[in-house]
Amino acid sequence: MQAPVRSALKSIVGDAHYRETDGDLVPFSRDATPLFSARPDAVVFPADTQEVSAVVSLATRHGIPVVPRGAGSNLCAATVALHGGIVLSLTRLNRILEIAPAELLARVQPGVTSAALAEEAADQELLWAPDPGSRTVATIGGTIATNAGGLRGLKYGVTRDYVLGLEAVLPTGEVIRTGGRLHKDVAGYDLTRLLTGSEGTLAVITEATLALRPAPRSSGTGVAYFPDLAAAGRAVAAIISGGVLPATLEFLDRPCIDAVEAFAGLGLRSDAGALLLFGDDGEPDAVAHALARMSDACTTQGALEVTRAAHVAEAEALLAARRCALPALSRLGALTILEDATVPRPRIAEMVERIDEIADRHDVTVATFGHAGDGNLHPTCVIGSREDTESIVRAEHAFKDIFTTAVELGGTITGEHGVGAAKLPYLSAQLGPDQIALLRRVKDAFDPAGILNPGKLGS
Amino acid sequence: MQAPVRSALKSIVGDAHYRETDGDLVPFSRDATPLFSARPDAVVFPADTQEVSAVVSLATRHGIPVVPRGAGSNLCAATVALHGGIVLSLTRLNRILEIAPAELLARVQPGVTSAALAEEAADQELLWAPDPGSRTVATIGGTIATNAGGLRGLKYGVTRDYVLGLEAVLPTGEVIRTGGRLHKDVAGYDLTRLLTGSEGTLAVITEATLALRPAPRSSGTGVAYFPDLAAAGRAVAAIISGGVLPATLEFLDRPCIDAVEAFAGLGLRSDAGALLLFGDDGEPDAVAHALARMSDACTTQGALEVTRAAHVAEAEALLAARRCALPALSRLGALTILEDATVPRPRIAEMVERIDEIADRHDVTVATFGHAGDGNLHPTCVIGSREDTESIVRAEHAFKDIFTTAVELGGTITGEHGVGAAKLPYLSAQLGPDQIALLRRVKDAFDPAGILNPGKLGS
Ligand SMILES: Cc1cc2nc3c(=O)[nH]c(=O)nc-3n(C[C@H](O)[C@H](O)[C@H](O)COP(=O)(O)OP(=O)(O)OC[C@H]3O[C@@H](n4cnc5c(N)ncnc54)[C@H](O)[C@@H]3O)c2cc1C
Ligand SMILES: Cc1cc2nc3c(=O)[nH]c(=O)nc-3n(C[C@H](O)[C@H](O)[C@H](O)COP(=O)(O)OP(=O)(O)OC[C@H]3O[C@@H](n4cnc5c(N)ncnc54)[C@H](O)[C@@H]3O)c2cc1C
Repeated sequence: MQAPVRSALKSIVGDAHYRETDGDLVPFSRDATPLFSARPDAVVFPADTQEVSAVVSLATRHGIPVVPRGAGSNLCAATVALHGGIVLSLTRLNRILEIAPAELLARVQPGVTSAALAEEAADQELLWAPDPGSRTVATIGGTIATNAGGLRGLKYGVTRDYVLGLEAVLPTGEVIRTGGRLHKDVAGYDLTRLLTGSEGTLAVITEATLALRPAPRSSGTGVAYFPDLAAAGRAVAAIISGGVLPATLEFLDRPCIDAVEAFAGLGLRSDAGALLLFGDDGEPDAVAHALARMSDACTTQGALEVTRAAHVAEAEALLAARRCALPALSRLGALTILEDATVPRPRIAEMVERIDEIADRHDVTVATFGHAGDGNLHPTCVIGSREDTESIVRAEHAFKDIFTTAVELGGTITGEHGVGAAKLPYLSAQLGPDQIALLRRVKDAFDPAGILNPGKLGS
Repeated sequence: MQAPVRSALKSIVGDAHYRETDGDLVPFSRDATPLFSARPDAVVFPADTQEVSAVVSLATRHGIPVVPRGAGSNLCAATVALHGGIVLSLTRLNRILEIAPAELLARVQPGVTSAALAEEAADQELLWAPDPGSRTVATIGGTIATNAGGLRGLKYGVTRDYVLGLEAVLPTGEVIRTGGRLHKDVAGYDLTRLLTGSEGTLAVITEATLALRPAPRSSGTGVAYFPDLAAAGRAVAAIISGGVLPATLEFLDRPCIDAVEAFAGLGLRSDAGALLLFGDDGEPDAVAHALARMSDACTTQGALEVTRAAHVAEAEALLAARRCALPALSRLGALTILEDATVPRPRIAEMVERIDEIADRHDVTVATFGHAGDGNLHPTCVIGSREDTESIVRAEHAFKDIFTTAVELGGTITGEHGVGAAKLPYLSAQLGPDQIALLRRVKDAFDPAGILNPGKLGS
């Protein structure tokens, strides 16, 4: 970092909150995405909106890249400082400013974790619905900026559905407030939703007003084993066209079941081709009714076995099977590449078949789990060694084919993890050149100097 | 219209679908907004996306304003051709292209009415949730472009929550497809939501993929009378903090009750200060439970009387009381100006009090009804004669004060009706100059020649 910029940054955030040694920068050189890393020139930890504004306007004046960063748990290389510059960590802005039960909302700073907000809300019998698998570390800022999904998406939607208003700092330093405390507000273009999912490329989120829901009074969970994924796919279709929109509908394929069982010893069946986890929450009668209908649908579609959790501990164990899919797969090799291609719900079985074919063709091991209700698949490639560049290249080719197939089946290259640097090369195949050009003009409208997270969305 | 442009337009849409006589233009010179009118130079009725694209690119080349128009039922002068030019009617693009129950979605052209889609969906036991009061005429294109709300907003949200993907024509002629068939898709900036609520100023929507829901299996409705609005406001707060998020929670103030009773003779009580209509839908047990809890909350908060509809006909009669509020008020004078200031839920009673004070101060008659659950109020001013310009000016001053008060109480100048030409003068007080400048840059990114609906949002 050039000396005048360094001293200006230090005077903005304070000496203690400016770092630039190699040791300091290592953790900020990568995120949760394998295969991507780049060293920034410095990392700063501002204390408030004013400091954020001062940092970005300085960067705009000097043409220095700025990468906003929460926990760095994203899976699309969205926080890798491809062009060096400043990593802007939002972790010191970590206060829950307000929980307002009468308005069913919370106002928080961006560094609060998803889990911390969920806990604080639960204390007041309220639900913070978005629940990415990473919620114990993921920040609200990162969750909004990636429009994260989670296990409850089918019934409760994604983060976007819960963002009422934002305070955000434009790269040129202006502080804007979009939306507000209201569920209904149509004054102006919907910048709240435009910033949601913008992956730190349009503005820095410094405060969020978020919708909460009344906490459901009860919940229930069940598991069904199927001979193969096609049967599980038919059960999903039958459940939904039967009029049930459940809170949880998750699947694991055979390799995932084996990995989870080896990892956690939950007593999962070893002879099934697919496992479907289903659950709902709400008024006790309605939950019982939904669970009964889902069980019936699974049986009718040829489930080998359907079990409902008798109590909360059993339900937790079942959910754990799904939640530990990624760690379980990670144990199988030194490198785990997790993707999130998504297809229309009726095409899940077809997509998984195509994924298996692709894996065979490229000679890689791919296990698939995901949010069956949303068609959101997480094909995961396990590679024995980080030095095995040949396998890595084969995996990359396999994923390229997987993305192409997802788009071909009417789906998307990313259902929830985002574009970042990792999927930018695949974006124009999905959106087309005219829309890519438009995204660039939108980016320009926010960030004329192009300093905010360059090499990502809008580049 | 200049001769070469006229003949170019005719050759694009066909002679029969180009109009420019005074008689033809009269219905296209105003929308549902009183006090605003302006004569366009021509109106065209394209048949498909290609014709829309040809019309707008011609207009961009010649710098001619284009006003996209559905049914013209908006209440914010959003379709008034302030600068003349071409009204682009989307009413011939009126086909329901697809209803896909397994994917819970519909694909429609923009000229389909909200009611037509709702009916077609209902035939397949699906719900098209957005239900603006104008749904029998309002088009899907207009409903999306205004992000319309309705009577079910508290539980089901607004139009935005149901738009999965759009085909849209940029003013420069390019056709883009945003989003798709998926509930989860984060590939690129969220242009789907940016176009939703953009009031015909960014692009012309030519196709929409919309989320449907399983139709609820049952519903229930009740009515509570209160001595005053403060008590009704407390009941709303009690219902929601008690954990119920009902489908319907609407109120009428005393002048509205009187007007509705005079209009429809439904047998409403004449001694109450406020009426609260409540309802829910879903599984029968859950509905019964929610209705019981809402009734209890009303009683506890001092309701004079609480009744639950015993059967569907009775429920319909109760809902009619709310639905006919506007026509009932319209009968009281030659001119009815309906507004839609919105405040946080706990401030409804305070806001209605302030509205009454403002009405007194400006010596105008204002009756207020609205979506209590959302804090979305419709203060409505009734004026005896369209020639009574003095009263009209007094009403305008009163509304200006009402908007200022809404923003002061943490609310918005428009909860669902939009900005259009009518509220553009009040927008910057809510958003501030930096955000207004940003909206203009976003507008520029879509519409460099500024031809699309000039004088509205983004101008
Ligand atoms: C084990 C595991 C499970 C996961 N499960 C899920 C899941 O179920 N669903 C899902 O959707 N994702 C999941 N993820 C991905 C990721 O954790 C989430 O997207 C998470 O919400 C990101 O939060 P973060 O604080 O780590 O953001 P970061 O990774 O720090 O940043 C993500 C993006 O947001 C930007 N950003 C961060 N903060 C701000 C801010 N204040 N203002 C502007 N931009 C900002 C960054 O520039 C970057 O582009 C998972 C990840 C892991 C490792
Ligand atoms: C009696 C009555 C009750 C109403 N109740 C409600 C209510 O409960 N909730 C609510 O929110 N609103 C309500 N409204 C307002 C209005 O009816 C709705 O917003 C409606 O959805 C508008 O649809 P439309 O087809 O009439 O659009 P129009 O009035 O024709 O157009 C509205 C806006 O959308 C743009 N537009 C139209 N079609 C397109 C397109 N294809 N592409 C791009 N832009 C387009 C126009 O340029 C304009 O800016 C009500 C109106 C009336 C008269």
